[in-house]
Amino acid sequence: MANTRIVVIGGSAAGPKAAAKARRIDPHAEITIIQKEADLSMASCGYPYYVGGFFDDRRMLICTPTGVVRDPNFFLNAKGITARTRTEALSIDREARTVACKNLDTGESQTLPYEKLVIATGSSPFIPPVPGIELEGITTLQSMRDADYLRQVRDEGKVKNAVVVGGGLIGVETCEALHLAGIQVTIVEMLPQIVTFLDWELAKLVENHINSNGARVITGNALTEFVGKDGTVTGARLADGTEIPCQLAVVAVGVRPNTRLAADAGLDVGRGIVVNPQMQTSDPDIYAIGDCVEIPHRITGKSVLAPFGDLANLEGRVAGQNAALGDGATFPGTFQTGVCKVFDYVVGSTGLSETAARKQGYDDIVCAEFAGLDKPPFMGGKLLVIKMVADATTGKLLGVQCVGPGDASKRIAIAAMALHGGLTVTDLVNADLPYAPPFSPALDPLITAAHVLENKMLGRMKGITPIEVKAKLDAGERPLLLDCRGPDEYDAMRLGIGETLIPLGALRSRLDEMPGDKDAEIICYCKISLRGYEAACLLAGQGYTNAKVLEGGIMAWPYPRER
Amino acid sequence: MANTRIVVIGGSAAGPKAAAKARRIDPHAEITIIQKEADLSMASCGYPYYVGGFFDDRRMLICTPTGVVRDPNFFLNAKGITARTRTEALSIDREARTVACKNLDTGESQTLPYEKLVIATGSSPFIPPVPGIELEGITTLQSMRDADYLRQVRDEGKVKNAVVVGGGLIGVETCEALHLAGIQVTIVEMLPQIVTFLDWELAKLVENHINSNGARVITGNALTEFVGKDGTVTGARLADGTEIPCQLAVVAVGVRPNTRLAADAGLDVGRGIVVNPQMQTSDPDIYAIGDCVEIPHRITGKSVLAPFGDLANLEGRVAGQNAALGDGATFPGTFQTGVCKVFDYVVGSTGLSETAARKQGYDDIVCAEFAGLDKPPFMGGKLLVIKMVADATTGKLLGVQCVGPGDASKRIAIAAMALHGGLTVTDLVNADLPYAPPFSPALDPLITAAHVLENKMLGRMKGITPIEVKAKLDAGERPLLLDCRGPDEYDAMRLGIGETLIPLGALRSRLDEMPGDKDAEIICYCKISLRGYEAACLLAGQGYTNAKVLEGGIMAWPYPRER
Repeated sequence: MANTRIVVIGGSAAGPKAAAKARRIDPHAEITIIQKEADLSMASCGYPYYVGGFFDDRRMLICTPTGVVRDPNFFLNAKGITARTRTEALSIDREARTVACKNLDTGESQTLPYEKLVIATGSSPFIPPVPGIELEGITTLQSMRDADYLRQVRDEGKVKNAVVVGGGLIGVETCEALHLAGIQVTIVEMLPQIVTFLDWELAKLVENHINSNGARVITGNALTEFVGKDGTVTGARLADGTEIPCQLAVVAVGVRPNTRLAADAGLDVGRGIVVNPQMQTSDPDIYAIGDCVEIPHRITGKSVLAPFGDLANLEGRVAGQNAALGDGATFPGTFQTGVCKVFDYVVGSTGLSETAARKQGYDDIVCAEFAGLDKPPFMGGKLLVIKMVADATTGKLLGVQCVGPGDASKRIAIAAMALHGGLTVTDLVNADLPYAPPFSPALDPLITAAHVLENKMLGRMKGITPIEVKAKLDAGERPLLLDCRGPDEYDAMRLGIGETLIPLGALRSRLDEMPGDKDAEIICYCKISLRGYEAACLLAGQGYTNAKVLEGGIMAWPYPRER
Repeated sequence: MANTRIVVIGGSAAGPKAAAKARRIDPHAEITIIQKEADLSMASCGYPYYVGGFFDDRRMLICTPTGVVRDPNFFLNAKGITARTRTEALSIDREARTVACKNLDTGESQTLPYEKLVIATGSSPFIPPVPGIELEGITTLQSMRDADYLRQVRDEGKVKNAVVVGGGLIGVETCEALHLAGIQVTIVEMLPQIVTFLDWELAKLVENHINSNGARVITGNALTEFVGKDGTVTGARLADGTEIPCQLAVVAVGVRPNTRLAADAGLDVGRGIVVNPQMQTSDPDIYAIGDCVEIPHRITGKSVLAPFGDLANLEGRVAGQNAALGDGATFPGTFQTGVCKVFDYVVGSTGLSETAARKQGYDDIVCAEFAGLDKPPFMGGKLLVIKMVADATTGKLLGVQCVGPGDASKRIAIAAMALHGGLTVTDLVNADLPYAPPFSPALDPLITAAHVLENKMLGRMKGITPIEVKAKLDAGERPLLLDCRGPDEYDAMRLGIGETLIPLGALRSRLDEMPGDKDAEIICYCKISLRGYEAACLLAGQGYTNAKVLEGGIMAWPYPRER
């Protein structure tokens, strides 16, 4: 039997993974990667850190851990895979089972036969069609070339002001990278919030953190035009007429799956290329993987785009195995788990946010917000703010968001695995996680967040969100706002929203200061609302029917504080 | 109706948690904590870090995060709980529903009535009955007094040599703490390995790390006697006759549940106090929680001791709720998840090790060892060695161990949650974890470990453990040992066990150097055995039927290396 010919279109993340897996399964297959770029297997998620100066050796983006550049020689010698770089796939002939391609340097055309084809054409940054978009100094951060360009900007040190258009993952990472290059950065986001995988109140904490680091975030204001002089960008004009001076602009308003090749070949394409769990397209001999496909969301079951580097690798492994061996491997889909570093904050999410859940029609849900330390104070614990979303009837976990200077990445990873297991809040309440003071408090903040959510579900705690409190105050309502901390804490930091300070330890002896009306609304809080919760329990015990807890306390308050 | 009287015996971790939870649920209950020690709610897991100088303010061990000492005043004012410190519970009269207790300072006796009783008497360090055990300078690290004593040793700086008896969690933590105090430390462990929650080969890596930090580990050698002069310890004598000079000895050979009070009251007691999932003893009005109880292992279903601070808190919450409200809350048991810091290593485990699984009668199991970085190299990734154990028939995960300078705590937490969800290796293979370069490689090492295990289960990879290779070599067998790294790597570090160096990239052109016998055993490896795996696949493709992969590669080799 002749050796199977496997052609992989795309050499960034998913493609090489598929090729390598196919090789390990079938040592005799003839495997070819077609890659438009000059480089292969680039660590593209590392670009912002190269630009930001976390490391200086560009080769580390395209090397194996032992320092070997992953070039066509490496693929040939170490893996027995032919990699054609600077080669564009032009079209797929499904009848003839061939791919037409062209060498971009020599102009030479070639037709490659395949028995199995893997499409890993990735995605392209969306470029908004605004006037001036063609000016010099406007870029994306998607390719090695982009990374090289921005690194050069850093190294030259000439640019003083930059605008980042878009406040998503790449936007905020790019913001930090340019800030670390000594550039004054402004993020412009059209929507009312950045990092839209978070609910507004958590995104606002991230925004506050970026602002406090000296970068600037503008939300709810769209870019309408780039202005320039002598062909070079000099400013960004926004919908409200503001013009932000800049010598550099990075456009990061999302990516679009590269589906043209698949669509032209008559394959089913939705928002991305349509695949089954085997990562097979509508043609059983053609697989598609990575940013160019749509995959099922594991909670909603609906097809979503999930352009994440880790999923590209997982999908590549599945397609590589199936191309080499038949269709035994499956990929179950995504929880759209993601994380990013934004200055000293870690920002992550898995599953559905409250906003996403409601948009998907989940209306019987319950949420809790919690703030706490990621380690004991004596080990230098840092703050985390967690929001947990669950199905109110079944208690099944739907999603977790986590932001703060603490190790949010760990908590999102744990939460993601809880989603994989279909766990309920009750399961999480008694989770047996590894505890030692260098790594977590005795009860991990994720467990405590589950405790808060359980207390709410069982009606033991009446929570109120900062958004709800703010709306009440803005509407002229005057609930009793009870800050339960100590006077020294109050002097150092306070909301200043008309609150009354009664330390928890004094509350029992100062009950006469409570409203005469036992049904009056009392909103209790402290730094993280643990004492606030105790106060609300105490008041409930005294017959107060409407004592609530401001969830997450002062640390999760997204609005300006008096102090 | 009269207020419920709830008495809690024990004021360290589980007891105060139960009392606080009961208070929040029932604002009217009369809640009393009886605590033998002078302190309450001590962060006892923090003792080694206080001794080691990670922080200097002793109060942090007994304070709330805002700096309030958790003394009887605090419990009374902030929580409405009466705490009687320096008070010993002498006996329980189940008929009369009373607890007899005595104030250790005044000698005053008292009888406290209860409707609900919670026993949280904790555990005591086992003190081996060896000659000399009573000498001055011999201590445990279990109480605030112990911590104060050892901290004083640190601050005085007189002790030059110390022996730590026992290489479990507390033993290795104490070793590091004393080492950081400038003391030359020797750990003496009777068993063939330290940290027995790990399999031998991983424990050996930890032992090597301790030795490389300048402390010393002696295994397989029991303490037989302490020797002393003028009533003070001067040395520890071992079974083989060795005498180790020391001015200090810390005994850490495990703890025993304090069950006497419960047993005397006629409650069911096994190795610990027997409880149901409601944390109820054989008397429905008496609960027991924390180190003094035995609880179900969530994999084997058998009762185990699990003296962990986090479980004490979880159990306390359940008992507190049930004492106040009836028996609605349940505690499902433990995976014996644990983690500790040992110098620059993190060492953790969840579920069953291979040894534990076999001891429990699981013989149809499959294991894989994997070494890899916890982040990309360009973000300063650090090594982790992971061992994963699964049921060979169902693929269900049974346990994960992880050691190394990388963030093992995160991986054990993820793995613990996978156990909670009853996940299989196939589930883990496609796990959607949060990825960004500051936090993990594109594929988390835990996922890659699952890939290795899947490859083994599907027969795609023949693994061989370092222990098996060593046994072959010791038995005079001479398999072809194929180091697939580069010459520079080989020069810098190598096993030196008679291996042949053929870089993976050169193997295709040097197949003539392979044995003529296609059934000859060939053992392939590299630094972490990823290239070793590719080499084995390549050789299998060339018809070699017996090409194996040394699991975990050089980084998981527990024996001395040539270089």
